[in-house]
Amino acid sequence: MDIKTPDWVKSSVFYQIFPDRFAKTQHPKPGLWQPKNLEPWDTLPTPQGYKGGDLWGVIEKLDYLQELGVNAIYFTPIFQSACNHRYHTHDYYQVDPMLGGNLAFEALLDAAHQRDMKVVLDGVFNHASRGFFFFNDILENGSHSPWVDWFRIIDWPLSPYDGSKPANYMSWWDIRALPQFNHDNPQVKEYLMQIGEYWVKKGIDGWRLDVPNEIKTLGFWQEFRTRIKAINPEAYIVGEIWTDAREWLDGTQFDGVMNYLLTEKILAFVGGDRLLDIYVESAPYNPYPPLSAKEYAKKIDKILNLYPWQIQLTQMNLLDSHDTARYRTVVGEDPKSIELATLLLFTSPGAPSIYYGDEIGLAGGLDPDCRRSFPPENNWDLDVLDYHKKLINLRRYCPALCTGEYQFIFANQSVYVFARLLEEQTLIIAVNISEQAEKVVIDLNQTITFNGEQILYGDVEYDWIQSKKQLNLILPARSGCILE
Amino acid sequence: MDIKTPDWVKSSVFYQIFPDRFAKTQHPKPGLWQPKNLEPWDTLPTPQGYKGGDLWGVIEKLDYLQELGVNAIYFTPIFQSACNHRYHTHDYYQVDPMLGGNLAFEALLDAAHQRDMKVVLDGVFNHASRGFFFFNDILENGSHSPWVDWFRIIDWPLSPYDGSKPANYMSWWDIRALPQFNHDNPQVKEYLMQIGEYWVKKGIDGWRLDVPNEIKTLGFWQEFRTRIKAINPEAYIVGEIWTDAREWLDGTQFDGVMNYLLTEKILAFVGGDRLLDIYVESAPYNPYPPLSAKEYAKKIDKILNLYPWQIQLTQMNLLDSHDTARYRTVVGEDPKSIELATLLLFTSPGAPSIYYGDEIGLAGGLDPDCRRSFPPENNWDLDVLDYHKKLINLRRYCPALCTGEYQFIFANQSVYVFARLLEEQTLIIAVNISEQAEKVVIDLNQTITFNGEQILYGDVEYDWIQSKKQLNLILPARSGCILE
Repeated sequence: MDIKTPDWVKSSVFYQIFPDRFAKTQHPKPGLWQPKNLEPWDTLPTPQGYKGGDLWGVIEKLDYLQELGVNAIYFTPIFQSACNHRYHTHDYYQVDPMLGGNLAFEALLDAAHQRDMKVVLDGVFNHASRGFFFFNDILENGSHSPWVDWFRIIDWPLSPYDGSKPANYMSWWDIRALPQFNHDNPQVKEYLMQIGEYWVKKGIDGWRLDVPNEIKTLGFWQEFRTRIKAINPEAYIVGEIWTDAREWLDGTQFDGVMNYLLTEKILAFVGGDRLLDIYVESAPYNPYPPLSAKEYAKKIDKILNLYPWQIQLTQMNLLDSHDTARYRTVVGEDPKSIELATLLLFTSPGAPSIYYGDEIGLAGGLDPDCRRSFPPENNWDLDVLDYHKKLINLRRYCPALCTGEYQFIFANQSVYVFARLLEEQTLIIAVNISEQAEKVVIDLNQTITFNGEQILYGDVEYDWIQSKKQLNLILPARSGCILE
Repeated sequence: MDIKTPDWVKSSVFYQIFPDRFAKTQHPKPGLWQPKNLEPWDTLPTPQGYKGGDLWGVIEKLDYLQELGVNAIYFTPIFQSACNHRYHTHDYYQVDPMLGGNLAFEALLDAAHQRDMKVVLDGVFNHASRGFFFFNDILENGSHSPWVDWFRIIDWPLSPYDGSKPANYMSWWDIRALPQFNHDNPQVKEYLMQIGEYWVKKGIDGWRLDVPNEIKTLGFWQEFRTRIKAINPEAYIVGEIWTDAREWLDGTQFDGVMNYLLTEKILAFVGGDRLLDIYVESAPYNPYPPLSAKEYAKKIDKILNLYPWQIQLTQMNLLDSHDTARYRTVVGEDPKSIELATLLLFTSPGAPSIYYGDEIGLAGGLDPDCRRSFPPENNWDLDVLDYHKKLINLRRYCPALCTGEYQFIFANQSVYVFARLLEEQTLIIAVNISEQAEKVVIDLNQTITFNGEQILYGDVEYDWIQSKKQLNLILPARSGCILE
């Protein structure tokens, strides 16, 4: 089949925002209810505490994001929810009042679109919350509820809040705060489809789908894609799938997934044995054992053969997220490991996604620590910000990085070299993970048109012998580069 | 002060609809989710059961209501709620999905307004429900909740569903399903005010306020009135106050109350000792002891002196409601008692309100029995329907019944006579509660211009001696009349 994925994603750099922690408006707006009990912005996150970020605050930061160079935002959930991460949806049609409600979101969507920034929302369609109307009705009315078959009831009575008794309903990971929809009920399926459609009609540019693998109802995601694309063929649909996602990346369901398969390979390669077990051993991705450049080459080759190329170009690539420790912390804040991973993130096929704050060196361990408040400017790591800006800029304005063919060129124990090729543009990307400088001699085959004109990124000595198609590289210890 | 109440109410006849029980659409519409567990329409009500009435069904019945002659509808709550009577509001901005949602309500409002019918909604602003977002957040987050001061918490932990432990929050009548707002929190006050404003901006013609006496925050209802009237000066604000309501009927708060003070006098007078104790002894109104006509006269005089005249004209008068047994059942289905009470309802100052089904003789004891489904036509009492139509017609098209001065004329043990006077129109209304025909001779004083032209309603023999200003009436047993 002819697989079609959204073109705009291929040249996008995403910025993932956890709304409670990114920005709090300096100019409170009407309709923004004043919460109590907010934790001070600069304290470490707690499981239940709110810092009080809001969407008016995000609007005030759009200048910053534009200057950074990102052109798409992925928001973790923004709908009304009685939880600071808002994965416990209470109402899919209302933006959370603490975020400023629908009014703030409409303003944000307008402001983002005026800057040619896309907005992707997080759709939590596997489960809802105890307060979600149709589930709450079951709590209130028990077996009399008119909506009893909207969820998966095991027995009566239900015990939503008292953990000493069986919950008696299916919930995500047996967490009773997260009752699971009965997707086999056609009414429920229709209800969820309509939510998907509603926000796309309102103008959002796509959906990131939370745990979509948990929805087993046959045809569910195929119908979702069909209905969403009927409204906006360029809407982006990206699933949270941590593993081999071929089941969902057949062209009839998602345009991509959160590409943790790539994440774990980048981390294992450039982080190697620097990764701190405490942050990864219980995580749902596996960035170990350490990979040599040769092994990395094999793993990447395997990933690139897993899915159709059009989907590779619209994968959402990332080094970390609200669901992992921050990569900076995972590698013990080793500066070179962070930079090299970022370089690979921005040069691999797929759309890079920056988890808010990574670009200024925000640290953070496992949840909830990975959800710290965005710090004031005096706490930024300006080196990190500087190479982020460079890489974002290259990624967006070098077409070969967006859609160019990926070609493996060279690997030994510590050096990995590949090319991104598109029509007249050839980029050579090289990474040396060794603690020593490495010299490599590369014979570029006849199919690659390379001119060796300039270094786009990185410290490297190079010599391009056009007649022999030979590239001699001297890569400093733990460094990488992009050559054109 | 100059008290201003909505003119349209003075010439309106209300029809009170309990939405789950009035009409179910014959042509299901998009957005109308199909409930499970509906009880058959023709079975008796149960505390938790739904019959599945909806607003599309009401639209289909507007022809019937128009032919009946009513020109205003008061809906008991229609907002999203996990309860068949919907006084447990889950979301004040959403019409219940089982009723057809906001889509159905917009269609209904349009269709009603096209017929010059007004629509008044029930505002439940004292308490919400366990699923209502800001309360649910407190259940989810406990003392960490950002909205913890939106309700009245006594201690932690809360026990919303387990009755064996203290609820630890204030609720209406200690019913833990109905947590009480903290109206002293200015944010809460603002939130509720905005709900009031929102629906008036959407086009509703007024608010019936549920248990408004429970809200003790100083100035709450004054602000509500000011803000509602600023949007629509003719919006009707009517409170559910069962007793002496002078505190709220000072012209700065409500335009009227549900006039149970009148209800109980009418019932005690025309029902007398026919009232069945079982239906009234535990009720929050007191239609006993039986009243003679002379006693009724005194009571009415007292009521009419209780409030300003402009408010008398916009009281909501009723014989029963969803909160009482149906009058038909209260009087043991005695036909004459029903007719006489209806006659007084339609001739007293204030807007008569017909509780759905009363006009076709629907019976029903205490809640939930008073909320039976509207029956099919073959179960209608056509005599009752016939005099309802006559009285509605007279009430709407005789200006004296709408706004005419009320003048007591005569009372003995069993006969009560009064006039409604407006400019050129004088109507004499007489009621005889005796089991015998009664002859009375009435000297009309010089201030009344009466022509004795015709009988507008009822079986009566009369003789009008213009020269002596003397009216001789022979009223059959348990009958009433309207003369012009």
